[in-house]
Amino acid sequence: MYEKLRMRVCAVNLALKDRGLVFQTWGNASAVDREHKVVAIKPSGVDYTCMTPEHISVVDMDGNRVAGDLKPSVDIATHLALYAEFSDIGGVIHTHSHYATCFAQARSEIPCLGTTHADYFHGTIPLTALPSPEQVCSDYEWNMGAIIINCFHNRNPLNCPAALVAGHGPFTWGETVEDALENACVLEEVARMATHTFAVNGNAAPLEPYLLDKHFLRKHGKSSYYGQE
Amino acid sequence: MYEKLRMRVCAVNLALKDRGLVFQTWGNASAVDREHKVVAIKPSGVDYTCMTPEHISVVDMDGNRVAGDLKPSVDIATHLALYAEFSDIGGVIHTHSHYATCFAQARSEIPCLGTTHADYFHGTIPLTALPSPEQVCSDYEWNMGAIIINCFHNRNPLNCPAALVAGHGPFTWGETVEDALENACVLEEVARMATHTFAVNGNAAPLEPYLLDKHFLRKHGKSSYYGQE
Amino acid sequence: MYEKLRMRVCAVNLALKDRGLVFQTWGNASAVDREHKVVAIKPSGVDYTCMTPEHISVVDMDGNRVAGDLKPSVDIATHLALYAEFSDIGGVIHTHSHYATCFAQARSEIPCLGTTHADYFHGTIPLTALPSPEQVCSDYEWNMGAIIINCFHNRNPLNCPAALVAGHGPFTWGETVEDALENACVLEEVARMATHTFAVNGNAAPLEPYLLDKHFLRKHGKSSYYGQE
Amino acid sequence: MYEKLRMRVCAVNLALKDRGLVFQTWGNASAVDREHKVVAIKPSGVDYTCMTPEHISVVDMDGNRVAGDLKPSVDIATHLALYAEFSDIGGVIHTHSHYATCFAQARSEIPCLGTTHADYFHGTIPLTALPSPEQVCSDYEWNMGAIIINCFHNRNPLNCPAALVAGHGPFTWGETVEDALENACVLEEVARMATHTFAVNGNAAPLEPYLLDKHFLRKHGKSSYYGQE
Repeated sequence: MYEKLRMRVCAVNLALKDRGLVFQTWGNASAVDREHKVVAIKPSGVDYTCMTPEHISVVDMDGNRVAGDLKPSVDIATHLALYAEFSDIGGVIHTHSHYATCFAQARSEIPCLGTTHADYFHGTIPLTALPSPEQVCSDYEWNMGAIIINCFHNRNPLNCPAALVAGHGPFTWGETVEDALENACVLEEVARMATHTFAVNGNAAPLEPYLLDKHFLRKHGKSSYYGQE
Repeated sequence: MYEKLRMRVCAVNLALKDRGLVFQTWGNASAVDREHKVVAIKPSGVDYTCMTPEHISVVDMDGNRVAGDLKPSVDIATHLALYAEFSDIGGVIHTHSHYATCFAQARSEIPCLGTTHADYFHGTIPLTALPSPEQVCSDYEWNMGAIIINCFHNRNPLNCPAALVAGHGPFTWGETVEDALENACVLEEVARMATHTFAVNGNAAPLEPYLLDKHFLRKHGKSSYYGQE
Repeated sequence: MYEKLRMRVCAVNLALKDRGLVFQTWGNASAVDREHKVVAIKPSGVDYTCMTPEHISVVDMDGNRVAGDLKPSVDIATHLALYAEFSDIGGVIHTHSHYATCFAQARSEIPCLGTTHADYFHGTIPLTALPSPEQVCSDYEWNMGAIIINCFHNRNPLNCPAALVAGHGPFTWGETVEDALENACVLEEVARMATHTFAVNGNAAPLEPYLLDKHFLRKHGKSSYYGQE
Repeated sequence: MYEKLRMRVCAVNLALKDRGLVFQTWGNASAVDREHKVVAIKPSGVDYTCMTPEHISVVDMDGNRVAGDLKPSVDIATHLALYAEFSDIGGVIHTHSHYATCFAQARSEIPCLGTTHADYFHGTIPLTALPSPEQVCSDYEWNMGAIIINCFHNRNPLNCPAALVAGHGPFTWGETVEDALENACVLEEVARMATHTFAVNGNAAPLEPYLLDKHFLRKHGKSSYYGQE
């Protein structure tokens, strides 16, 4: 069941490893099928070297397993919280990709320092609040979704498809799980660029808003003119 | 038409990827045929994995497409501006190569810190002015060429075949597109060296002018004695 | 004799090279067979490119060779000291892996800066005292074990399976030599993350204790719920 | 003529590229045959991808070509100066390897910060004086040898087989050209470690002399006990 969905989720999980975003087993990608109200996700703690679509877990929107023999990722509740709130997203990815995780550990958002960032993210990549002891004690993974969602009350999550969980690491998303993968790759390069930009100039300032808008809108929305028709 | 030109441009665009200068699709190389007054350039937003010479766009010096089925890179106007002003160059390359882009984001020129730099660039690699809101609003890409050209009013662009567009990233050029590729590779290594040189010594000073001249002229011009005859 | 033990030790030594933890011949892995009271270890100064299980030295708990034609690693006494004191460990690894060694050279412990660290190490990775001139003068390698052990008087070595020898580099261990390998890989990534976290924020603070506990205990001990059954 | 010598020199030059020490064509290795009073060296500005022993130039101790059709490296005079003064060395290598060059550009010697350094270099890796305008004006490359030699008036060059030419980059040497290669590889890793050690602790101090001696002498000289007999 859900074979095509599981094939796509498996392919993206393997791509995370190939693209250098996942060390050991530290990462997971999921995709939602909104028609059938299910989410397919990587199983917990499974090695990437022999992962096939059959290993992918499928759960309903409450997290009950409906297909697959393996336990889903421990982070499944975070994914479900994001799908419940962000109605336009189709895929979610969590990694401990190196430089994005360093910003999360440094408790720093990532300001938009140049057009590379602006081509994908319309402004600062937010840092979540720290989960409280109570939020950690029960429903930790669901609460991790809640603190991410709190960063987007006044912001379209597809205009900035990434957030850094304080002290932990990045989540990205997109209209599809393949878009979430591209956003995860770009986030890591943007975080690496920010690290070395600050190394060159500790007082580097954010890109001017008119350049930020120009670059984001050159690639996104109805007036975009990047790429082929 | 223009088969040889398109083959060369295709090969250099693929080499940008192989050399690690291009992440995703963020880069483009072009070559000019001054006799036929045309420029061949990478198409916009096209994946490198299946690029062939047939995908390469050819435009006239005003940017009108004369061969190829795909839209040229959005940056074509910047390339055309440079070809119009720098009459001795045959190729132009734009990338978001990591360390050179970090200097552009840090709003810092790259001083000549050692003989590696001096072997290729006769002095500081300039940082452009920031484009004004008006320059961004209309003819943005052509104006990006204009702010690069402004850095070379008193300087031969072949003696420093690179510039950093403020907040954006590097452009390089050369007598041929293959030379522009070599300059793009060296610029990235020079920027990476400058980053780590400043990490070791935040007050690192530029190379003495007599050493700068010695190294540049050992490899370039009529008194050069590097390489084979 | 001891063929299976030597095969495992050989495989882990080769894996150290493959995982980029060993430069030149700078590293060694060993495993103990507590039933037969022997330790198998990489031979001293031998190239990795042609290492086979036959090259692995086997010594008794006093360091006397009982199998193999080659001298054991000069660090064998450090391994023996750790096996004698840490009764639950089955494997020990020493490397000069890049970032962990930089912390040892900087004379800095590695604080737990995020959940990646907390998933594997329950708190700060300790820095040993500097060996005294007397400790260097005689039984240097055994004394290196002693200064490591001194860091664990009030701490279960399996809850923090790593230490940094001041001015030298890291040792890791585990219930098996394969676990020690995983810990060596994770230690290096954790040290690299700490380096870049401090680059982003020189005042980065340790993870809150309740998050440290949550993550360590989510993966270790009787209440863990990470991975498959 | 000199076939074996040219084969070895060719192999080491190719190894410089494989080991990541040479970018573009920026490096050269040579070996001396003291019986026949000749030096074999890489030709100037030649691509590594098709280098064979036939391309290697052989010159006498005054730099006159005695075998090979290609001009020797422009740095040949530096090599000859070192062979003339350092009577026990058999090979010399010059590179622009990344981190060692950054120290040269930062005008900083490399202090011994840990045992990795001490295993190969008995103390600080020296930085040369800057060549004067007169030294640059005539016999530049020979004078580069002279300023290196000046660092070793009170020091055995085989106890510290490397120096950094100020503003330029590293030279290494050894009893054989293969030893010079190993020293070039280790120098680069030691420089990279020093960069990141200072990133973690800007006040990192040199290794205590008794540990420096212990590690250098554990691997070198009549009391060494590292490696096999």
